[in-house]
Amino acid sequence: MEESQHEWSLAEQQLAREIFDRAYEREITALVKDVRTRSSTLERIEDLWQLHDFLSAKRHEIDGKYDYQYSVLLFVFARLVRDGWLHLNELEQLNTDKLSKIKALTRM
Amino acid sequence: MEESQHEWSLAEQQLAREIFDRAYEREITALVKDVRTRSSTLERIEDLWQLHDFLSAKRHEIDGKYDYQYSVLLFVFARLVRDGWLHLNELEQLNTDKLSKIKALTRM
Repeated sequence: MEESQHEWSLAEQQLAREIFDRAYEREITALVKDVRTRSSTLERIEDLWQLHDFLSAKRHEIDGKYDYQYSVLLFVFARLVRDGWLHLNELEQLNTDKLSKIKALTRM
Repeated sequence: MEESQHEWSLAEQQLAREIFDRAYEREITALVKDVRTRSSTLERIEDLWQLHDFLSAKRHEIDGKYDYQYSVLLFVFARLVRDGWLHLNELEQLNTDKLSKIKALTRM
């Protein structure tokens, strides 16, 4: 399932970068909004540490998930589709083989 | 400089607990307010991780600082005075010896 950079045409590389950045932007925008909402209801020390735990988990998740390497990019896209940050139709301009692999991975 | 529990009269123990809890309540109330203010201006991912770093540091600091053991309580009170969460005049009902030690520690 792994792909190396030479299996991505220049057009696909450019497209992949755009899709990747778009998903990242969407997730971060939603996360910032979520944290602002959570913070507006903070009252007790437990609420602060719960927010801290939430941010720790999100930071770890996002640092790990947004890994722009061609060798793992199909997995990354599949996860972003599963998590709702990308739609499969945004990936339709990738070649058929890659799209099939992504679709298969999203069902795992 | 260390004190054990038997060097604290029952009245002093009760007073110490009240003073300790009051300082904690003050610091936490201010911290919750501070975090709500910081959160209201969150915009970018860097702001989120800055908030996360801030909460990590505060959690570590508060967990370490509010250590209610008679053997270290004079140090704790001195630090709370230095940090502005207690005023020396709130400690005046402790015996003179303890108050002198706390005063000396606040100048360190």
